[in-house]
Amino acid sequence: MNINQSATSPLAPELIEQFRKIVGDRHAITDAADIEAYVTEERNLFHGRSPLVLRPGSTAEVSAICKLASEHKIALVPQGGNTGLVGGQTPHNGEVVVSLRRLDKIREVDTASNTMTCEAGVVLQIAQQKAAEVDRLFPLSLGAEGSCTIGGNLSTNAGGTAALAYGVAREMALGLEVVLADGRVLNALSKLKKDNTGYNLHNLFIGAEGTLGIITAATLKLFPKPHAVETAFVGLKSPAAALKLLTIAQGEAANALTSFELLSELAVDFSIRHGIDVRDPLEAKHPWYVLMELSASSDDARTPLETILERAMEAEIVDDAVIAASLAQRAAFWKLRDEMSAAQKPEGGSIKHDISVPVAAVPAFIAEADAAVVKLIPGARPVPFGHLGDGNLHYNVSEPAGCNNTADYLARWHEMNAVVFEIVLRMGGSISAEHGIGVLKRDELPDVKDKTAIELMRQLKAMLDPLGIMNPGKVL
Amino acid sequence: MNINQSATSPLAPELIEQFRKIVGDRHAITDAADIEAYVTEERNLFHGRSPLVLRPGSTAEVSAICKLASEHKIALVPQGGNTGLVGGQTPHNGEVVVSLRRLDKIREVDTASNTMTCEAGVVLQIAQQKAAEVDRLFPLSLGAEGSCTIGGNLSTNAGGTAALAYGVAREMALGLEVVLADGRVLNALSKLKKDNTGYNLHNLFIGAEGTLGIITAATLKLFPKPHAVETAFVGLKSPAAALKLLTIAQGEAANALTSFELLSELAVDFSIRHGIDVRDPLEAKHPWYVLMELSASSDDARTPLETILERAMEAEIVDDAVIAASLAQRAAFWKLRDEMSAAQKPEGGSIKHDISVPVAAVPAFIAEADAAVVKLIPGARPVPFGHLGDGNLHYNVSEPAGCNNTADYLARWHEMNAVVFEIVLRMGGSISAEHGIGVLKRDELPDVKDKTAIELMRQLKAMLDPLGIMNPGKVL
Repeated sequence: MNINQSATSPLAPELIEQFRKIVGDRHAITDAADIEAYVTEERNLFHGRSPLVLRPGSTAEVSAICKLASEHKIALVPQGGNTGLVGGQTPHNGEVVVSLRRLDKIREVDTASNTMTCEAGVVLQIAQQKAAEVDRLFPLSLGAEGSCTIGGNLSTNAGGTAALAYGVAREMALGLEVVLADGRVLNALSKLKKDNTGYNLHNLFIGAEGTLGIITAATLKLFPKPHAVETAFVGLKSPAAALKLLTIAQGEAANALTSFELLSELAVDFSIRHGIDVRDPLEAKHPWYVLMELSASSDDARTPLETILERAMEAEIVDDAVIAASLAQRAAFWKLRDEMSAAQKPEGGSIKHDISVPVAAVPAFIAEADAAVVKLIPGARPVPFGHLGDGNLHYNVSEPAGCNNTADYLARWHEMNAVVFEIVLRMGGSISAEHGIGVLKRDELPDVKDKTAIELMRQLKAMLDPLGIMNPGKVL
Repeated sequence: MNINQSATSPLAPELIEQFRKIVGDRHAITDAADIEAYVTEERNLFHGRSPLVLRPGSTAEVSAICKLASEHKIALVPQGGNTGLVGGQTPHNGEVVVSLRRLDKIREVDTASNTMTCEAGVVLQIAQQKAAEVDRLFPLSLGAEGSCTIGGNLSTNAGGTAALAYGVAREMALGLEVVLADGRVLNALSKLKKDNTGYNLHNLFIGAEGTLGIITAATLKLFPKPHAVETAFVGLKSPAAALKLLTIAQGEAANALTSFELLSELAVDFSIRHGIDVRDPLEAKHPWYVLMELSASSDDARTPLETILERAMEAEIVDDAVIAASLAQRAAFWKLRDEMSAAQKPEGGSIKHDISVPVAAVPAFIAEADAAVVKLIPGARPVPFGHLGDGNLHYNVSEPAGCNNTADYLARWHEMNAVVFEIVLRMGGSISAEHGIGVLKRDELPDVKDKTAIELMRQLKAMLDPLGIMNPGKVL
């Protein structure tokens, strides 16, 4: 996908020199082969181009880069682990890439205050491990955790599988350090849970996808490590049954219910068929499945999980269920879930939607969307799965079985988006629950968002980035 | 306390008529005696004046008021339950008061999505009761809950006693409806837990104390009702011991630890001496006390509470403890805590600070602040108490025993503030943890806040309220 490939004048060599001086020779990359890794992304959906990748090693260097870029009106694209799914981290028009990966220090861990101050380039998994080392939990968890970074997680307000109990990335940040477009450094780092001194600034930058400033560090919340984790794989008849199970589980376990994933039969089927080392946890097939997990502060998560399942079986909500008997079996349940995206590839083209609706509306959404996409493209195969507890579904639709023209199918991407988004909006939902706007959904945004909200977003952009050099063309 | 009592020209009668037409005769108050209740507040610390109090009955009416006020550059002061503690809700300079109390509808309760949409004027206690009726918990809880409103709670980002587990008011709002200075209505109401479509706007208005717009409604999160609640009153030697107990309690109970209040001997002593129907829960006196509460999703909160106390006693962290044996005894523990502010009055003048520091820094803060205030005013009696789990202390200092000139003592308010705030800031803390800035701390703000943060706050104010009509003179 090429976005606005307008001709940009090449960066003057003397400017490249000035940028190079800020970060040092080794960290100013101009070699096309070395740049390649920064302008492409895993799925090869977006391919950008850039004359220069800068790898600053400190907040002061990021500030100097922004100052120089402002003086010469040079557009910048901030980048973390380059795992974003909406093209937000890609220089589509020859912008300078600012890779934050060298800002990888964990500045402080404070177990009494339950906080950890990380620089933007710290890899999520490293942050998780650091928390575990001091007997704490940093709960953010998602597929790309081995390579995505804290700065990227916050810039895109990442969600993931633990949001049900711990919230999205936004809710895990107590404060931020941000470099503004003109190079000013906003020090809003804070270990405070309560601070009512003036306007809430840091939330402006979380989820702004690098268009309002560059996040260079964050104070993150740590949580007590759960003492016991129990995981169940459940077969049931419908999303409505799953919703009833969710209500029982939350009533019984409250915040100890840390995951509640709804999986359609086809999603499970694809994962078993194409996933590596994936097996069906249940003996028979079921129209729908739930993968649920309890993380208890006490030593016993099994009793409440059994209570939930017994009550649901008595009420004929659940048809079959198995609780993982070992860590290996628990890992196998999650493997089935984690392979779900990749397992859709062998089934041909897939038109994907990352949507959310109010939790109560999920069953109606699935019913209406399934009917609408099949009406639009007969034989199209909806493969819904996702975080029911958050009302967030990855509503992916695979091409009809035996389809012999994937390109033609994928060409109807926008048409299908329109059909699905109409239902989402009617139900008070969001067309991007987790992944953000980037360039992928930029052009849809004004149609789906409150008019005043769009006006305020434009005003904020003009206020914080009057020259339009921060990740231009993304979000707005 | 009179703030900037500059002469304001009286509101032209024809303008009063135009405002009156918007809300209807009954709801435009011009009678001085009727206005009195809106321009004074409970403690009589602030006394304002206003020619007109408007009581709109709908968002459309609030919008019309703002539009008219913009056209004629009339300053507005939004007001909820009029319980704020920093003079934010008071018309200090003859502004028009916009009372939101008639916006008191609960628009929707959705138990499957666990959300409740309330208008701004809904009294906090009514919201709590409505949640309880549908077997849910709305956890925000504070002293003024019988009269404060949801709009005021959000505008001031209220904290309270349940913030430890459930967060402050900000964390309980999924979305807002806001009327902007020019009358535009921002519809950012949302039942979604995940929505990454553009900049986070609603957090700008939460904690902005009505200076950026008027919150007219909010979508609030509901939580599962705890099945069991257990409360302990604990005697121990020092804030450091209390911090160790907190760490043990969080490790054992995680999010089930819903309150952890640190109380100094003098605070408890005053409450027992002057509080109504307050008795000492423990046999002997202790230098420090902790009031802690566990709210469990299971039926048993007692076992984990006993485990915590046993471990802490074995480690010689806790010297004595009693677990409430009945609801009445639990209420008595909380009564002792709730009477704490009022019980300081009979002891003469009190210079108050609502501060927070990183949780780990609380013991050092108390030691340093105690030494500093006694050095400043020999005989001054620090009465610290507050939410240790949030690092939030009400660091109140009573006049010396036998002081015969309270006015002279209180005249040193700013001097003592300076001494205490210096320690707070050195420790990375906040000079207003819960109560906000209002007019009370407005002049201190530029000295204690990051310079870039203040610049951004001014830019935001100019962007959202270019005429300066929204609660002028507050915060900035």
